[in-house]
Amino acid sequence: MSIFADADLTCNDFLGGRVRLYQPVKGYRAGVDPVLLAAAVPARAGDHVLELGCGAGQALLCLAARVPGLRLTGVELQAAYADLARRNGALNGQGIDVIEADLAQLPVSLRQMQFAHVIANPPYYRAGGHSPAQDAGRRVALGEETPLQDWIAVAAKRLAPRGYLHMIQRADRLPDMLVACAGRLGSLEVLPLAPRQERAAELVILRARKEGRAEFRLHAPLILHKGARHERDGESYQEEVADVLRQGAALPWPGEKRPA
Amino acid sequence: MSIFADADLTCNDFLGGRVRLYQPVKGYRAGVDPVLLAAAVPARAGDHVLELGCGAGQALLCLAARVPGLRLTGVELQAAYADLARRNGALNGQGIDVIEADLAQLPVSLRQMQFAHVIANPPYYRAGGHSPAQDAGRRVALGEETPLQDWIAVAAKRLAPRGYLHMIQRADRLPDMLVACAGRLGSLEVLPLAPRQERAAELVILRARKEGRAEFRLHAPLILHKGARHERDGESYQEEVADVLRQGAALPWPGEKRPA
Repeated sequence: MSIFADADLTCNDFLGGRVRLYQPVKGYRAGVDPVLLAAAVPARAGDHVLELGCGAGQALLCLAARVPGLRLTGVELQAAYADLARRNGALNGQGIDVIEADLAQLPVSLRQMQFAHVIANPPYYRAGGHSPAQDAGRRVALGEETPLQDWIAVAAKRLAPRGYLHMIQRADRLPDMLVACAGRLGSLEVLPLAPRQERAAELVILRARKEGRAEFRLHAPLILHKGARHERDGESYQEEVADVLRQGAALPWPGEKRPA
Repeated sequence: MSIFADADLTCNDFLGGRVRLYQPVKGYRAGVDPVLLAAAVPARAGDHVLELGCGAGQALLCLAARVPGLRLTGVELQAAYADLARRNGALNGQGIDVIEADLAQLPVSLRQMQFAHVIANPPYYRAGGHSPAQDAGRRVALGEETPLQDWIAVAAKRLAPRGYLHMIQRADRLPDMLVACAGRLGSLEVLPLAPRQERAAELVILRARKEGRAEFRLHAPLILHKGARHERDGESYQEEVADVLRQGAALPWPGEKRPA
């Protein structure tokens, strides 16, 4: 499969309809994680943003919907998803420069560029550590072909001085992420994402800065859902999370004033 | 100063009077951190416990007050504090085998031993990273002479298979701690200690296990104080924290049943 046929795609709304995305019926379908990732990035008009492993373009397009005037570049290993990201960019009136490449072998043109922001939502499972998905595209998108440390090493190289990396990842990979940042990026901050109050974090958003020298900060968790347990079918997101998912708001990063 | 004169000491109660400790009037005076550390350790009667940098013995004696029948060993660099730890052991009816030594140069006798538990509350400030304390003993106790990674490397060597390390440390040192654990200890768990709800963690307790293979866990923070801000003079600890500090209870580690 080089590209997806229209019959194999659905079109879905994100951010209350501010972003529309074609996604494969079978394959990797984005959830809320790339939306939260995009909401965490303090990009400004004119910034050039690189996403490593951009998939169908969900995170880049959610970010562009909140912050006008960005330049968007995505790297995607799988040709069909790279094609989809380009089509989704056009669908949303955004040009995404999508480069079909392996992270470990970026083309020279990209290796000569630097970015104000790098974002990534790398595969959540270690290679060999889970049952392989039936669908090959989903398998590559969910399973780790490239070690997590390589994602961070590549991000660090592509960041301009004082540029930011934001990465969303399973909380159990935090040690690997911090080890990979050592000596490469500084001013590390971790925002744990917990499903509910008093529950362990399942995801974390890592913020790191090229040439950053501030001390590491472990923020209070962002609690995603109201209540002590899952309530079936109900809209249970905490208000600030619902604002991100439904209104396209910025994620209220601790210690920052919330944008109006 | 080789040992403290009686006139230079005060005697203070911990755990609601279950532990009494001589501490220097001028010098390193223990706070709640070693008490919380001791409360986090799931030791059982008969276990041999090693504290690296035992100071006046507060953490070991708080642990022994909760768990009867432990064997206690402490390593302490400063002769005066090593002496004090021995005296405090006797005062509390506990024999502590206190070894006056540099962590980096443990005597052969200790290097031939293995422990079910290693605990440590290492200095909180990097060498050169803060204004030096006036008092030399306090300076060594608060400031890092031995790199944090050496504390973890020594702990890993002294642990028996399946043995636990518990370490309390400033949250901003978490990356250093996790980097030091990589390849040495597994089944890492981090319990953030936040002063209040929705505040960043200031301290963390790291639990790690020799030969552990479980995935890293980032627990919900333990909130130390009630309310949104400091209330002067009031007893403001959350109930479960007050139970630790005043009643000698175990720290309710997430996912474990609380001991009766």
